[in-house]
Amino acid sequence: GGVDKGVDFANYFCTYAYLYHQKEMLCDRVRMDAYYNAIFQNKQHFHGKTVLDVGTGSGILAIWSAQAGARKVYAVEATKMSDHARELVKANNFEHVVEVIEGTVEDISLPEKVDVIISEWMGYFLLRESMFDSVICARDRWLKPTGVMYPSHARMWVAPIRSGLADQKMTDFESSMDDWYKFLDETKTDYGVDMGVLTKPFSEEQKKYYLQTSMWNNLHPQQVIGVPAIIKEIDCLTATVEELLHVRANFSSSITLENTRFSGFGGWFDVHFRGSSQNPARQEIELTTAPSQDNGTHWGQQVFLVHPPLRVQEGDKMAVSISMTRSKENHRLMEVEFTCEMRQSSGTQPRPFTKKFFIE
Amino acid sequence: GGVDKGVDFANYFCTYAYLYHQKEMLCDRVRMDAYYNAIFQNKQHFHGKTVLDVGTGSGILAIWSAQAGARKVYAVEATKMSDHARELVKANNFEHVVEVIEGTVEDISLPEKVDVIISEWMGYFLLRESMFDSVICARDRWLKPTGVMYPSHARMWVAPIRSGLADQKMTDFESSMDDWYKFLDETKTDYGVDMGVLTKPFSEEQKKYYLQTSMWNNLHPQQVIGVPAIIKEIDCLTATVEELLHVRANFSSSITLENTRFSGFGGWFDVHFRGSSQNPARQEIELTTAPSQDNGTHWGQQVFLVHPPLRVQEGDKMAVSISMTRSKENHRLMEVEFTCEMRQSSGTQPRPFTKKFFIE
Ligand SMILES: Nc1ncnc2c1ncn2[C@@H]1O[C@H](CSCC[C@H](N)C(=O)O)[C@@H](O)[C@H]1O
Ligand SMILES: Nc1ncnc2c1ncn2[C@@H]1O[C@H](CSCC[C@H](N)C(=O)O)[C@@H](O)[C@H]1O
Repeated sequence: GGVDKGVDFANYFCTYAYLYHQKEMLCDRVRMDAYYNAIFQNKQHFHGKTVLDVGTGSGILAIWSAQAGARKVYAVEATKMSDHARELVKANNFEHVVEVIEGTVEDISLPEKVDVIISEWMGYFLLRESMFDSVICARDRWLKPTGVMYPSHARMWVAPIRSGLADQKMTDFESSMDDWYKFLDETKTDYGVDMGVLTKPFSEEQKKYYLQTSMWNNLHPQQVIGVPAIIKEIDCLTATVEELLHVRANFSSSITLENTRFSGFGGWFDVHFRGSSQNPARQEIELTTAPSQDNGTHWGQQVFLVHPPLRVQEGDKMAVSISMTRSKENHRLMEVEFTCEMRQSSGTQPRPFTKKFFIE
Repeated sequence: GGVDKGVDFANYFCTYAYLYHQKEMLCDRVRMDAYYNAIFQNKQHFHGKTVLDVGTGSGILAIWSAQAGARKVYAVEATKMSDHARELVKANNFEHVVEVIEGTVEDISLPEKVDVIISEWMGYFLLRESMFDSVICARDRWLKPTGVMYPSHARMWVAPIRSGLADQKMTDFESSMDDWYKFLDETKTDYGVDMGVLTKPFSEEQKKYYLQTSMWNNLHPQQVIGVPAIIKEIDCLTATVEELLHVRANFSSSITLENTRFSGFGGWFDVHFRGSSQNPARQEIELTTAPSQDNGTHWGQQVFLVHPPLRVQEGDKMAVSISMTRSKENHRLMEVEFTCEMRQSSGTQPRPFTKKFFIE
């Protein structure tokens, strides 16, 4: 909708044209194991079937689908990575099954409808990159009424966390402002121009950068200090773009650690491979990006830091509402707003606060 | 010529919309001193005159021009930084002199021709960003026949250098390839796909990244091991875009250090403020980005590393030809090719070599 294709290629697709980046995904064993097991433990979904791989990248999911017995796989890739995918398909002797098509899935055309749509479309905090839009488009155009989606379901999670990054970021912000004031002095003294009027916009710019931008982080499970909540469930077979444009939820959580610091929220997602209700998976597979000591993913978690951190006690409760929309300037980036009301067991009740974040 | 504006804003202009980035330039004292002295030691060029500032950014050069007595300054800025520039002009009480205009200088229109065009258009190795094209366009449209350019001249320099970065980059490349082979094994064993066919394109991608991309570096003067050569001189009053599209030069250099390593070439530039021949500067000012212990700039030098490094002796001679063109994919980036023939005083004569680099 109204997206300049040239800009989208310059801003978004470009990184996927590097084997280096594809390799990063191919080295994520949690991700790889989940798709691998989903396919090979549910071969009945692939055997003799037609498959569409939306955003095939290196071609890995298309080749697995072929190995699981697919009759025909359409592997669509927007970038020049398609050339490498084609080579890889050939080297693994599936050129008679896998057809690699260069183009966006929105633009290309297939000679038939398909039984399965497989795609690894998930971005940070699930929806960053907005690539699921493309999967929906492909589904509505090319999936048979009896078709199944791989993955079939997705969920977004949020939990209160503690993190030393909050102090770090505040220190960074403050030292950037100290620097600014020194710069103001020097520019006035040495170069005769008073830049004081730019202090407010500069401080807002830096605040946005240091304090209002969510961060990639690999949280340790012990940094999760309260009960995680599901804020969104997606049925990949029926979801619409509309319901993704604005994700809204209210949830409550209670602190599960005694005497700790609430530094903000962590967000992650999981997806499931369950087939469809008429055609359920023999073996359900889960891919989770929840905080984990040993099974971290390249997605990590998104961390939304609140300043200053709040001392909290076991049993303290919080009522949270979260709202996520797409950035007006770039539909692949997100803006998230949290409103949070604490009810502390001590009886004190801090003022409710609202904080806005940018997922860049 | 044929540049998609949306892509250019997404790829190029975007960073200039941040005060943080403008501040980096405003904190470069070598840069600031040069423009400050050029203006205030040549007030006769500004007093009572009309000035066009191409790419005013924060507005600093426009305000200095006004402080030096300009009757009118047109300060043109492509990005939203123009709003900040307007505020800064007002806070420094020059809103009656400086008119900030948001737009690219190619698109905007002025009510009159100007006496002076001032601009800080220099990118890495002078020409990266290709912003001088815009200055030429402004000059041809808006400069009076008697007008002067600030700066008035520019030169590009190249010298043989030594640098430990060459070993570093080779090690990085090799360890990336070691990683790749481990990845190949694992993907074959654990996931049943042979990715060997991608080894060549991956290695080329990584070679380009680690070994063929020029690097920003702040060279120490002692890292320059031979006589620097000028490869291009530009008269800003008469230069054409054509002559910038392809910069070609042959030069020779001799090694000035006894028994050292030749690791490649360093490239930098200087610009001069000399006024025009009818209207020369009272005080000529130079802004140089040559290697310097105490007067480094944010431009640093561009370093083009040759692998492996070559042992060289004082008096060894090299005949070099250099060719620089714009990248086909992005006219603001450059491709540089060096051909180098050594004549060593020892009598041995290594094979001439040709190396291509990307300035990204
Ligand atoms: N609308 C679209 N049409 C075609 N390809 C798309 C697309 N949107 C994103 N892509 C591609 O989808 C890929 C997502 S990354 C996943 C790659 C591969 N399926 C794997 O699992 O390893 C990228 O290569 C990206 O270029
Ligand atoms: N064609 C063009 N038209 C208008 N502005 C341009 C332009 N090309 C580059 N610019 C702007 O030129 C500026 C160059 S950086 C220099 C900023 C300022 N004159 C200073 O000396 O501090 C950037 O802000 C960039 O956005």
